[in-house]
Amino acid sequence: MTALLSALTGDPEIEDLLSDEAQLGAMLAFERALAEASADCGFVPAEAASAIVAATENFAPDWAELAAGMARDGVVVPALVKQLKAAVPEEHRPALHKGATSQDVIDTALMLQVAKVLGVYETRLSSLLAALEELAHLHGDTTLMAHTRMQVALPTTWGAKLASWGEPLQRHLRAIAGMRRSLLVIQLGGPVGDRGSFEGFGDAIAAGTAKRLDLGLATPWQAQRDPIAALGNWLALIAGTLGKIGADVALLAQNEVAAVTLEGGGGSSAMAHKSNPVNAEVLVALARQVAGLAGTLNQALVHENERSGAAWTLEWLTLPQMLVSTGASLRLAQKLVEQIRVV
Amino acid sequence: MTALLSALTGDPEIEDLLSDEAQLGAMLAFERALAEASADCGFVPAEAASAIVAATENFAPDWAELAAGMARDGVVVPALVKQLKAAVPEEHRPALHKGATSQDVIDTALMLQVAKVLGVYETRLSSLLAALEELAHLHGDTTLMAHTRMQVALPTTWGAKLASWGEPLQRHLRAIAGMRRSLLVIQLGGPVGDRGSFEGFGDAIAAGTAKRLDLGLATPWQAQRDPIAALGNWLALIAGTLGKIGADVALLAQNEVAAVTLEGGGGSSAMAHKSNPVNAEVLVALARQVAGLAGTLNQALVHENERSGAAWTLEWLTLPQMLVSTGASLRLAQKLVEQIRVV
Amino acid sequence: MTALLSALTGDPEIEDLLSDEAQLGAMLAFERALAEASADCGFVPAEAASAIVAATENFAPDWAELAAGMARDGVVVPALVKQLKAAVPEEHRPALHKGATSQDVIDTALMLQVAKVLGVYETRLSSLLAALEELAHLHGDTTLMAHTRMQVALPTTWGAKLASWGEPLQRHLRAIAGMRRSLLVIQLGGPVGDRGSFEGFGDAIAAGTAKRLDLGLATPWQAQRDPIAALGNWLALIAGTLGKIGADVALLAQNEVAAVTLEGGGGSSAMAHKSNPVNAEVLVALARQVAGLAGTLNQALVHENERSGAAWTLEWLTLPQMLVSTGASLRLAQKLVEQIRVV
Amino acid sequence: MTALLSALTGDPEIEDLLSDEAQLGAMLAFERALAEASADCGFVPAEAASAIVAATENFAPDWAELAAGMARDGVVVPALVKQLKAAVPEEHRPALHKGATSQDVIDTALMLQVAKVLGVYETRLSSLLAALEELAHLHGDTTLMAHTRMQVALPTTWGAKLASWGEPLQRHLRAIAGMRRSLLVIQLGGPVGDRGSFEGFGDAIAAGTAKRLDLGLATPWQAQRDPIAALGNWLALIAGTLGKIGADVALLAQNEVAAVTLEGGGGSSAMAHKSNPVNAEVLVALARQVAGLAGTLNQALVHENERSGAAWTLEWLTLPQMLVSTGASLRLAQKLVEQIRVV
Repeated sequence: MTALLSALTGDPEIEDLLSDEAQLGAMLAFERALAEASADCGFVPAEAASAIVAATENFAPDWAELAAGMARDGVVVPALVKQLKAAVPEEHRPALHKGATSQDVIDTALMLQVAKVLGVYETRLSSLLAALEELAHLHGDTTLMAHTRMQVALPTTWGAKLASWGEPLQRHLRAIAGMRRSLLVIQLGGPVGDRGSFEGFGDAIAAGTAKRLDLGLATPWQAQRDPIAALGNWLALIAGTLGKIGADVALLAQNEVAAVTLEGGGGSSAMAHKSNPVNAEVLVALARQVAGLAGTLNQALVHENERSGAAWTLEWLTLPQMLVSTGASLRLAQKLVEQIRVV
Repeated sequence: MTALLSALTGDPEIEDLLSDEAQLGAMLAFERALAEASADCGFVPAEAASAIVAATENFAPDWAELAAGMARDGVVVPALVKQLKAAVPEEHRPALHKGATSQDVIDTALMLQVAKVLGVYETRLSSLLAALEELAHLHGDTTLMAHTRMQVALPTTWGAKLASWGEPLQRHLRAIAGMRRSLLVIQLGGPVGDRGSFEGFGDAIAAGTAKRLDLGLATPWQAQRDPIAALGNWLALIAGTLGKIGADVALLAQNEVAAVTLEGGGGSSAMAHKSNPVNAEVLVALARQVAGLAGTLNQALVHENERSGAAWTLEWLTLPQMLVSTGASLRLAQKLVEQIRVV
Repeated sequence: MTALLSALTGDPEIEDLLSDEAQLGAMLAFERALAEASADCGFVPAEAASAIVAATENFAPDWAELAAGMARDGVVVPALVKQLKAAVPEEHRPALHKGATSQDVIDTALMLQVAKVLGVYETRLSSLLAALEELAHLHGDTTLMAHTRMQVALPTTWGAKLASWGEPLQRHLRAIAGMRRSLLVIQLGGPVGDRGSFEGFGDAIAAGTAKRLDLGLATPWQAQRDPIAALGNWLALIAGTLGKIGADVALLAQNEVAAVTLEGGGGSSAMAHKSNPVNAEVLVALARQVAGLAGTLNQALVHENERSGAAWTLEWLTLPQMLVSTGASLRLAQKLVEQIRVV
Repeated sequence: MTALLSALTGDPEIEDLLSDEAQLGAMLAFERALAEASADCGFVPAEAASAIVAATENFAPDWAELAAGMARDGVVVPALVKQLKAAVPEEHRPALHKGATSQDVIDTALMLQVAKVLGVYETRLSSLLAALEELAHLHGDTTLMAHTRMQVALPTTWGAKLASWGEPLQRHLRAIAGMRRSLLVIQLGGPVGDRGSFEGFGDAIAAGTAKRLDLGLATPWQAQRDPIAALGNWLALIAGTLGKIGADVALLAQNEVAAVTLEGGGGSSAMAHKSNPVNAEVLVALARQVAGLAGTLNQALVHENERSGAAWTLEWLTLPQMLVSTGASLRLAQKLVEQIRVV
């Protein structure tokens, strides 16, 4: 997405949490925690773990070489491990990334990144619900003409309308706690996903690494991608709920309906009189984009064998965009709700 | 879907639960329970409720007229209520469907139907997990060459493979309990979804109706479609998980790999030597179909105003097919797992 | 789709053209034409061809056994060929289906069926364009308030509105001629798609078969599915164009806008005053359904090897539904345009 | 997409053609051509046109203010016109953008950008076909075991396989000429899309502007989005065709099949012996991404009224990504085909 389009439909805060720099930080945190947990049970020497911690803390990547590695290997980890090894004293190099595989690094790093994104969403959902409550406080008893099947139905209240907007958001907010348990877990399986490469220490190392990273514990899920798809599906619920609010506002703000006006609507290059419901429209567009991407992300459940490069890459091509667009939906919904003036 | 295609990709048991007859039965159960609950709190006379119960129990629909009503009104309820009224003594007719709207009938009936479908899924998931356990019992320690990124990786065990198939299914099975609480609830809102048409008795009538139908209680969710989309998203997780099993088996059963053979594979019209992994292939196809339909169903979250005919119709065009295809996936996965002979 | 839903969103004429019976007729026509063309160049004896023609003309299938074969083999052809062989004198049986494979039968039969569907579409598109022209004749110069970004813009004319509806339809209509050339071609490749099984007669037999079936000639396209996906994409254009008309009409028919009224709108079970724009809404729903299915059908382009059962089945799960829904869109658009009364 | 992911799945050349800078250049070209064409028929003074040409040629945008305008107005044009006006002598300002609307600028600029993208695709398709021909020249007669339904079928030749890869690409290449005629046309409609704002000069100005921009002529298509969707659908055909090549290669390069090896496959962080078919896998992932996005882009055909902000924004959220991913598919397919070593 270009910078101009991102100004409309993007989300700088979420984009930052999903940036290459943020991913690198999370990958280094994984390698660090892995080394320490491995030292705890004697799978690597304690001095090696210390050397690795030191190396990751002062690591300055060669980004061009990482990009070249990404293009060559289909995943950045081999190039990263090579660079990291160079930063570790030779005798401690075998301890770095020992037993682990690329997917352990990438998937666990993603969980660390998603943990932060969920935190942002949680704050925004709460803030949006507060804005809806404020509207309800002001206008809950105000009469509003209901419309069903695109026709005038019977009068209802703004309170009922606002409840229909807010209740799904409360469900989405409550779901975060469950997702923290079911989704935000460590990935540690080794090359073929059975922890065999950790020579009997696998479960202990997984537990120690998870604890250090403040993630939950789980058996290896390399080829079990349902938690990832479920995350995407939940994003579609949020973006879709906000798209419904956008659609409603755009309909209510029609000049002929005029149930609401919007403070600070968008201008037109040709018609000075217009005040366009830009945020409402973009919420609809984002809902449709995220819904479609959810369909595509679910295609990635067909993850062949012990690790599918094709299915994994498809996740990378969809989930980050969904996280950003859902973030943007929350950002714009807040703006939109604050723009609403009940007539 | 034609009968021939349904023999391959359909599911007679689920199709029955979603048939017009099953829906009619559920709609009549709703009208019955509504009348009784309305009588309980004095919103309609007790004799009227009795008359309605009697009429629904002996009701013989004019299907052609129901179809004509569906085409005319976009929903079958107006025509159904008209037919039902004719079967009720004139003085009790005002009590029929009193306060309710089409969506109350359709959505609640759907929940009654889905309750039964979930029961079937629950049985099948358990049965499939048992079949996987049986395989693990026989071959859990057997060595299996792992493949990552479509290349030979390192040896693992059938136990690890079977765990990667079964663990997601256990999650999907466990999710049913939660779905029963969050999804299987009554819809009762009246014309504009605020229970205003029930003149103060709305909450009591909703509670009484829900209790009679063995559904949970909920505020009206006419324009809150996230539980419907979430159901579809869960279906995509199941079908996708089974599609992964299908993809794995098709790869393992390749002649050159020959890690498994399949008892009773499909024949070819031109090559007598072939034994095609038909069930495995169909699992992949169904996974992709359901994933795509999930994307479309999430589009229906953009449900404008107090009731959207367009978004609601889109649900009808997607969700039943998803329920059938997911059922077919479970049916075929059972067959496939039972066909597996580890080499 | 159940009969009730089909009354709203289905299309009996198109459903008939895609029925099991219609497919059987097309498959028999293929086997007949293949036998005759094979006799012409001496690949099979003339008497055998005559016997095959006779057998196919009087063939009474065992549908239950065909369904069982479909479930077993993943394609109906092996069971069909077995039944057909039993209806041919023993000495001529080797000539039946000689050199061909299941996919030759199914794909060519599909082209024969699609040829008829395109004929229906052509008639309906022309009829719909005539109805739009009639509206333009009556109201082309009538002023209509234009709306951009959901806000009142400036006055335009009904003529401009109707042109924006009709011009895409004219493009879709014109595309049919090209599709007849590029899509409606014979599939004849034999087991692995290279015509090797026809022992040097492949090209001649393909030409003779195609001529008899009034199809174009083409090299085998068993694993080249772009014409199928392109057909689906064109369907999405039609359904989408009609969905836009539906969306426009639903907006213009809002009570507060009242730029049109609709003769014979749908009734409500709870609000007698309502006249719902049912056909307009369904057009929107069908557009979204077909768009989503197009996305899924394009997934089937990833058709592995010389023939993919998974990708092929996915076509069967999407394309027929798209053909029916697009037919329904054309059917409903005609009804909708005829309902329009310009205010 | 982050820089790292872009190194794998992106396309710098296409990304450049779709950058903010490229769009700005195209928008300025539009305003310049419009001014000149308007002067030609006396709709604006010749000196004004000259002043506008000069201003656009030396224009240095305030990008931050353009981004702010994008976020406020939902489209960058109002802010751009404001900045441009400031760069034109006051007396000539009314001539700038006279009669035009934002969509005229954006859509026409997009066509100018797409024209260049099509040029790149054309070159790459030709180059890819040449590489396939080269392979056929070397190995066309080499025997290859065909696989149908994931099972060994019968021997075929590399020539047949390569034909099944190349023939669809030839069709996609040939389609470019038609797309140049049907797609690469000017958008000029004014605020409500009927050229009324050009006071009778609309057709002449459209013709003059189109000629200057080397675009075809067309009636306004503001609310007729089928050419845009058709472009996206064609992209899905290309990416899908290349995804099929990727799937085939990944299957043929399996160690157990070993029909091909790949020069320079990707490395693993844990298994030094591996040579991963990274390019093949990414082709599959891109095919699935673009297929899904095509489904979403077709949703944007439901473009309500004379201009839909929601549907238009949805195009921006899908089409550019599809153009980049299809470009990346072509880029990677070339690499992949050059990596193939027939065993």
